[in-house]
Amino acid sequence: MSKVMAVNAGSSSLKFQLLEMPEEKVLMQGIIERIGQENAVISIKYGQNIEPKRLIGAEEGHITLTKNGGQKFEHDMAIKDHDQAIDILLQKLTDLGIVKDFNEITGVGHRVVAGGEWFNHSVVVTDDVLTKIDRLADYAPLHNPANAMGIRAFQKLLPDALSVAVFDTSFHQTMPEKNYLYSIPYEFYARYGARKYGAHGTSHRYVTERAAKKLGIPLEKFNAISFHLGAGASVTAIKNGKSYDTSMGFTPLAGLTMATRSGDIDPSLVYYIQEREGLSNEEMLSVLNKKSGLLGISTISSDMRDLEEVRETNKHAKLALDMFYDRVIRYAGQYFAELGRVDAVIFTAGIGENDALTRAKVLASLAFAGVKIDDAANNVRGKEAILTTADSTVAGLLIPTNEELMIARDVEALR
Amino acid sequence: MSKVMAVNAGSSSLKFQLLEMPEEKVLMQGIIERIGQENAVISIKYGQNIEPKRLIGAEEGHITLTKNGGQKFEHDMAIKDHDQAIDILLQKLTDLGIVKDFNEITGVGHRVVAGGEWFNHSVVVTDDVLTKIDRLADYAPLHNPANAMGIRAFQKLLPDALSVAVFDTSFHQTMPEKNYLYSIPYEFYARYGARKYGAHGTSHRYVTERAAKKLGIPLEKFNAISFHLGAGASVTAIKNGKSYDTSMGFTPLAGLTMATRSGDIDPSLVYYIQEREGLSNEEMLSVLNKKSGLLGISTISSDMRDLEEVRETNKHAKLALDMFYDRVIRYAGQYFAELGRVDAVIFTAGIGENDALTRAKVLASLAFAGVKIDDAANNVRGKEAILTTADSTVAGLLIPTNEELMIARDVEALR
Repeated sequence: MSKVMAVNAGSSSLKFQLLEMPEEKVLMQGIIERIGQENAVISIKYGQNIEPKRLIGAEEGHITLTKNGGQKFEHDMAIKDHDQAIDILLQKLTDLGIVKDFNEITGVGHRVVAGGEWFNHSVVVTDDVLTKIDRLADYAPLHNPANAMGIRAFQKLLPDALSVAVFDTSFHQTMPEKNYLYSIPYEFYARYGARKYGAHGTSHRYVTERAAKKLGIPLEKFNAISFHLGAGASVTAIKNGKSYDTSMGFTPLAGLTMATRSGDIDPSLVYYIQEREGLSNEEMLSVLNKKSGLLGISTISSDMRDLEEVRETNKHAKLALDMFYDRVIRYAGQYFAELGRVDAVIFTAGIGENDALTRAKVLASLAFAGVKIDDAANNVRGKEAILTTADSTVAGLLIPTNEELMIARDVEALR
Repeated sequence: MSKVMAVNAGSSSLKFQLLEMPEEKVLMQGIIERIGQENAVISIKYGQNIEPKRLIGAEEGHITLTKNGGQKFEHDMAIKDHDQAIDILLQKLTDLGIVKDFNEITGVGHRVVAGGEWFNHSVVVTDDVLTKIDRLADYAPLHNPANAMGIRAFQKLLPDALSVAVFDTSFHQTMPEKNYLYSIPYEFYARYGARKYGAHGTSHRYVTERAAKKLGIPLEKFNAISFHLGAGASVTAIKNGKSYDTSMGFTPLAGLTMATRSGDIDPSLVYYIQEREGLSNEEMLSVLNKKSGLLGISTISSDMRDLEEVRETNKHAKLALDMFYDRVIRYAGQYFAELGRVDAVIFTAGIGENDALTRAKVLASLAFAGVKIDDAANNVRGKEAILTTADSTVAGLLIPTNEELMIARDVEALR
């Protein structure tokens, strides 16, 4: 029995979840935001099995009860860097009685965005691994340096815990060459690693394993299309349990219409707009990453829920939604043709888990292949469900994603 | 009865075909190349019904007999501009006895690459139309000015012939907003017409009409996926006889892997390569347009036939072919899902008409939707054929394209 921390370190934030393994029980989860500022916020939710008197022991901060009977601790304070953030976090874990001693934490698994071609599975962090994560910053300039910072800070404060790197890209390293290459001069692949790496690999891997298990199909024979639809969204074609193709590309900009990202677009048009607007490359990329997608088309919000609320009265909101559904459907058909045989269509992440209409549109678009939606079953949110009728040729599934659990499992597997 | 000229004017070339209408009989076809140079070449092929003595009347140039019993006239000479090229062409037509008098040519139909949102069908050329073609040069800087030059030159030399503009893009103007827009800030559409226009519209329109007729399905109820696969290649989803979606985008760079064009690519990667290679926007676009596609991946040739010859021994050739097939298959599935119901999958243009393997790969990828290829029937080149078995859910068809005929028909319809 051991406690494993799953960590997602951003440049000014730190998300974490502590799990009891191998029971896979979540002991606490939380986030520290605005690291580096005077008004950082630490927020921790934890379970029902904490002794009430311990709560009083938290001399600073604010504790409330959550709906499910757990507790939520929040505290505003100045936090200068990730080292201090983690130090405070560990202190709070003992203060709040979530752990008795730091040494109970036997492993820390870190989400790392870019693993390039060096990492096709999760690894124990060595000096060599850290150097490679640093060098891969070229592919994820906002994320990899922050991920590396998180790793170093935890290593300093928990030197005895096993440190593991879990890459967003590693699951997609099984894609065949014809799918990961672009139709550009081959020398660019050789020289710069110019290829498709994909993203959301940990999520796609988790829901794929879960869906195969639920359907009783051996993973190595399992074909599926996995839709991770959140603010960032990607689709993966799963062949024999492995990633065969995916909609995100060299970066997470490609593929679907997302909350604020453009997805696929004619590169000529990018230059055309850039030149007429007088933007630098960086500024144009910022437009495509932060001002496009649902936000760009709707002009009002990047959140599907906002758009759904006004779709009857706001033409732009309706258009943005229709484009979103349409792009998702395009990938459903595309991957069906690439895979030939599909056992399951899986939906996960914020939109995938909560938006029945998106799921219904995708499943309906595959009617020509014998997919039959069960409307009553599809009327569900955030929990595992089979969404199709018994005589559907392909099973539609809702599988809530759990990247933290996948990270903790990888840590356990490497102990 | 009238003679109609179908013209495709490039910046230094002029392609033409003279048809007897409404019989749709080709009287002659040819090309003038290297206009503006000392060593321009005029090449004309014409039919079997010319009186042999006429041939001797061509005092300059070189006449040979072609395989099908026709004649081919070739002449090297200095040609300073399009006006002179057309003057010489018309002279040769009477010299060679193809027409007795210029006035027999009652109409001239011109291919125009970009029609923007102004033209959703072919139109008689007026001053206003010419002004608009000039203004649309922004969208097709290499093509529209040359197209306009061809129109003006023919108008000068054949002032009594009806002048008609036939746009590559107009067929695609029926696409719904959700398909022609990109997921970028809507203001760019409003400000710059930033949207998908598509291309090869005249070809897609021709094969669609032909296929519907061949299958005995009313055009207005006909759903199809039309693959125009040549050096430039595009796929169109046809819904109720109209373009519903197409793979080319703001420009013909987008979509499939082509002879030298990249097709779809993550825009982040374009900038990444551009910055590392130190290229200007224009240079980078040139790489994507002229050095990518089959040529870029194979490193040896942009021609599929060359690659097929060495596919067993050359890894890069095989890879380029596999990528080409794969990208075509992706669109087959994508448009199947978008359309829901498909009556026919149509193949045309150089590769589509001659490469049985590409057609077989596409049809096989749709097996999950009940498409059944007839291998013997698919073993065909360059002539109309049904490629699927009688019990296939969808008909596969080879329809040789004929853009010139479509242009001539549009001229006739506007007389």
